[in-house]
Amino acid sequence: MSKTVTVQEAAQLLLDADDILILTHQYPDGDTLGSGYGLCLGLRSLGKRARVICSDPIPEKYEYMAVQAPCEEFEPRFICAVDVADTKLLGSLAAFEGRVDLAIDHHGSHKDFQDHLFLDAQSPATALLIYDVLLAMGVSVDSHMAECLYTGIATDTGCFKYGNTTPKAHRVAAQLMELGARYEMINRSMFDIKSRARVELERLALESMEFYYGGRCAVMVISNDMLEQSGAQENDMEGLAPIPRQIEGVWVGITLRQKPDGGFKVSVRTGNHADASAICTLLGGGGHRQAAGCAMKGPAQAAIQRMLEAVAQATPDIR
Amino acid sequence: MSKTVTVQEAAQLLLDADDILILTHQYPDGDTLGSGYGLCLGLRSLGKRARVICSDPIPEKYEYMAVQAPCEEFEPRFICAVDVADTKLLGSLAAFEGRVDLAIDHHGSHKDFQDHLFLDAQSPATALLIYDVLLAMGVSVDSHMAECLYTGIATDTGCFKYGNTTPKAHRVAAQLMELGARYEMINRSMFDIKSRARVELERLALESMEFYYGGRCAVMVISNDMLEQSGAQENDMEGLAPIPRQIEGVWVGITLRQKPDGGFKVSVRTGNHADASAICTLLGGGGHRQAAGCAMKGPAQAAIQRMLEAVAQATPDIR
Repeated sequence: MSKTVTVQEAAQLLLDADDILILTHQYPDGDTLGSGYGLCLGLRSLGKRARVICSDPIPEKYEYMAVQAPCEEFEPRFICAVDVADTKLLGSLAAFEGRVDLAIDHHGSHKDFQDHLFLDAQSPATALLIYDVLLAMGVSVDSHMAECLYTGIATDTGCFKYGNTTPKAHRVAAQLMELGARYEMINRSMFDIKSRARVELERLALESMEFYYGGRCAVMVISNDMLEQSGAQENDMEGLAPIPRQIEGVWVGITLRQKPDGGFKVSVRTGNHADASAICTLLGGGGHRQAAGCAMKGPAQAAIQRMLEAVAQATPDIR
Repeated sequence: MSKTVTVQEAAQLLLDADDILILTHQYPDGDTLGSGYGLCLGLRSLGKRARVICSDPIPEKYEYMAVQAPCEEFEPRFICAVDVADTKLLGSLAAFEGRVDLAIDHHGSHKDFQDHLFLDAQSPATALLIYDVLLAMGVSVDSHMAECLYTGIATDTGCFKYGNTTPKAHRVAAQLMELGARYEMINRSMFDIKSRARVELERLALESMEFYYGGRCAVMVISNDMLEQSGAQENDMEGLAPIPRQIEGVWVGITLRQKPDGGFKVSVRTGNHADASAICTLLGGGGHRQAAGCAMKGPAQAAIQRMLEAVAQATPDIR
């Protein structure tokens, strides 16, 4: 069982340490990288040796955050994991399991794996916690650190759009803008730019959309053929699942994504009129009230038919 | 020539007034309506009679802001225009031209038409100015007012994404959230929900997309046939022009929208590598460096050819 620490205690642990290795989670996103790079830059500004590692290559769109100046090689003497909810998410860095001195995280589902834990499950982003840690260490936050932290906050809140956004997220964003974060460039790159393959995949998926129950249920299929035809890769798939639910009048939005074996990974999104978790539970899956998932066997038409029956069973009003 | 006033003077004018008619601009958006309803609610909380009018019907998605409680009929004794940059934008309310006592606005292009003007061209939204006016009047901002003002700020900044976003916009948003603005519901309704016709139009438009100059220029056509096939209306067209420029590697994104007479309204969007205004100026149009427009005669292929020549002429590096 690890020891839970406050922001001051986390800062003191880091102040007392040197040769610090920072671990980020696999399939890295804006929050784990922004938190990792922001912390690394802060530690270096205090004269410490620090570096960030990840089990996967860093997507090009996050390159502006990278800590460019090389650091002399060092054998880690303190290991800090940021935004890592579970050692499973360390990927190829699993060798460090059991050696993590401090974890800084905001996931309510965080699974104990470290000596010390600074957790705030109410925080919309780990980057907000890193900001508090930097201030508690007496770091003078510069524009590069500000860009890292802004990126973490913006990406985990959907640019301040999602329900997890807090007044504090806005206030810290304001401070980071004043510290020089190029928020326009960051937001454009995080939220606007899509690959050609992604746009083509979206077009094909929209073409497949069918409506049921008087337009209250929308179903979109992403088949292996579409993936091949568009040339889309794994990182082009982000943000597709919410599309059916975004259509006016839709209570239940369903996205079926074909797997190589021909089966489907199903995502269900709902608003206030239906319960995604109840629908998916009927099919052996689960999740949250507004976002849940399950696995289905093909072919597509049979899978859709079973989904529609589960929708009606869990949502009697929809007929 | 009207008199420019400070926020305190604007507040005093309103405090001294009663029977206040608030004018919003035609094709109403979140900022003019949020500003109008927010101000109206604030004035009523001080015991004054006030109401909001607009030349156009209020789109359903803004209904949560409407001032529901009826107000006894009154003959206006003070007229205040909010977010109205030009009397042309009053539409059928043009009869009030020359009778406007106070205009509150944030458009740098504001054209003089009122007795007193409270203008801040650096403010990303008029709603931010209304917030300052309410505080200066001593209004206790409630959750309904907070939702109106939050809507104005969020819609005019693209949910805090655009370059016009300021630290103050974030700080006021934080305060409005604390005052009870249901930001999740507002953001979902403003930024996520699309009509079925809009989704179908988007799909058809994506199908038309062609790339030139090694993928650095993307051209999308929205034809009258597509409008008819999708059933899309005027208010379904919002946010289509930026799509071509959002594709990775695109320097110049061009959207040609067919008009009933067969000609095209052309929107050009660019990043840092090209100048939209320079391109459109070559074709008799104009605008800003990153967003400009012009009008072209059909047919589509000839219009695209002329656009591409102008792109190359204004952007020699693109070839």
